[in-house]
Amino acid sequence: MGADGVKPVGRGPDIQELGRGVARGDRTRLSQAITLCESRRIQDMPLAAELLRGLPAPHRPGLRVGISGPPGAGKSTLIDALGCALVDKGHQVAVLAVDPSSRISGGSILGDKTRMAALAAREEAFIRPSPSGGITGGVARRTREGIRLCEAAGFDVVLVETVGVGQSEVGIRDLVDVFLLLLSPSAGDDLQGIKRGIMEQADLVAVNKADGDTLAAARRTQADMAMALHLTAAPEDGWTRQVLALSALTKHGLEEVWTQVLACAEHRRTDGSLAAWRRAQELRSFRALAHELLLDRLLAQSSLVAQLDELEGALSRGETALDAALGHVLASFRLP
Amino acid sequence: MGADGVKPVGRGPDIQELGRGVARGDRTRLSQAITLCESRRIQDMPLAAELLRGLPAPHRPGLRVGISGPPGAGKSTLIDALGCALVDKGHQVAVLAVDPSSRISGGSILGDKTRMAALAAREEAFIRPSPSGGITGGVARRTREGIRLCEAAGFDVVLVETVGVGQSEVGIRDLVDVFLLLLSPSAGDDLQGIKRGIMEQADLVAVNKADGDTLAAARRTQADMAMALHLTAAPEDGWTRQVLALSALTKHGLEEVWTQVLACAEHRRTDGSLAAWRRAQELRSFRALAHELLLDRLLAQSSLVAQLDELEGALSRGETALDAALGHVLASFRLP
Repeated sequence: MGADGVKPVGRGPDIQELGRGVARGDRTRLSQAITLCESRRIQDMPLAAELLRGLPAPHRPGLRVGISGPPGAGKSTLIDALGCALVDKGHQVAVLAVDPSSRISGGSILGDKTRMAALAAREEAFIRPSPSGGITGGVARRTREGIRLCEAAGFDVVLVETVGVGQSEVGIRDLVDVFLLLLSPSAGDDLQGIKRGIMEQADLVAVNKADGDTLAAARRTQADMAMALHLTAAPEDGWTRQVLALSALTKHGLEEVWTQVLACAEHRRTDGSLAAWRRAQELRSFRALAHELLLDRLLAQSSLVAQLDELEGALSRGETALDAALGHVLASFRLP
Repeated sequence: MGADGVKPVGRGPDIQELGRGVARGDRTRLSQAITLCESRRIQDMPLAAELLRGLPAPHRPGLRVGISGPPGAGKSTLIDALGCALVDKGHQVAVLAVDPSSRISGGSILGDKTRMAALAAREEAFIRPSPSGGITGGVARRTREGIRLCEAAGFDVVLVETVGVGQSEVGIRDLVDVFLLLLSPSAGDDLQGIKRGIMEQADLVAVNKADGDTLAAARRTQADMAMALHLTAAPEDGWTRQVLALSALTKHGLEEVWTQVLACAEHRRTDGSLAAWRRAQELRSFRALAHELLLDRLLAQSSLVAQLDELEGALSRGETALDAALGHVLASFRLP
């Protein structure tokens, strides 16, 4: 077990001690606390709730930045470079990787620390790998709790990396202050399978790999994206979205990306404050978070999960119809 | 109570009789069956499951068409005109209105039958209004069940109208064979707040009101949308999306829209069949439908819903923090 401390918190941990450890910035405690909040074990859930309720407010107001984009866009390279630059500016930087597809892919093949080697070596940084396979659903809730824990531990910049470009970013958008979409230079006019409204959700679009052989393609993609953004709905709060080009490798354009992130956060401070913006987010997402929590609680019954797996198998083999499968789910609704 | 029969099915209805009524195309029975499947009452859920399991396969393979678009695009006018044209061609047409926002808006102000007066007068048509306030969540599951029931009752074209352009279309996309996005002519380059990937999900885009004073604007919007579609990801199955202009009022272009809908369905029949496409949809959405069902079952506890309402109120008044509110939800997790 490394400093990650991703072992299950078992045998009745002292929640108050765990909370104190988080509050003094103890990385091992922080990792254990996140693991506790990710746990699907029935007995861990009230402990996690107790821990979160007892957390102190963050020392200083932080910034929550979501970074998403298709595989291969260079999210890790960007976060590695950006994280190091922020540490150099005096920030404490936490990185949370969220992989909604982890049940299928089993998580990233390379560990997150390998993917972000320079940042991982910095004492002021904390990198939390995405949970390995088995955890589905509850993504918004777990991510929110991870952010809360990192902020309580003193991190004033939390970068949330979402892998894949799917439906689940919809929830994550409401958990961060600024949402950055990172793209690769595109060969043609196909925008890399960007779907499901992620483009419309972005506060800022950055085209990576604006260097060497791919510089011209990056510029072209930048222009295409600017056109595409222009044709879609603008954010409701009047923020003007920009499309930037950068090279996470040479760090050219990196500073400008961060400047735009700060400008967007600043824009949101004008009519009230970022805190007010966050309260509105919380209110907007309360119902969904509560539903996630309730469903998590229900799926903490391993028998139920096993049954869903079995029915899904039968469905894929054509041995049952959907109506019948859903009827089985309902019929065997057992309450723990 | 009208022919809709939207009274609650109480006091132990005879499910087999209800199923037989649906199968012989009895409209009152069909309405009652849909109401049963929409019910949040604990005792109704196993009855609904029994009903669905016992349904006969449809007499003839039907077509499921989703129609979405921003408020004011003219969805009702289109469905009214299209539905009548389809009835004239010998089809039996069911219209299901889905309003994910109905908890807030309390459903449409005008009844759906008023909105589609010509179609409502046709014997071969069945119009199911969106459920009035109180039903949140479970949209995909309820819509799927409504489609199943209509098909069992002999309707070979089911038009699913989704009101509003939000997140919930994501689930509805996987319930229909062809998804049509309807737009108004736009005054400028702002595409009417189309968000969250609905554009990327569309199989076909139609710009309405290509008549009179708005003809030029409709043509312009058509060109803009063609450009926007060109810049976003194409459907994975190789279907080429088109942007059409029509007037639901004069019916000019209506036939072409339907031709394109059929062409899209036909395209999906080529590599296998529409049935295979639907089986893949079902498998893809099983997990989400099962989760919706479980959550519905849980929220059938009125005490839980009341508690969520109360916590949401406290949150909005600043009387509690989100962590504390979610902690309460978990702590009071009572299993019926």
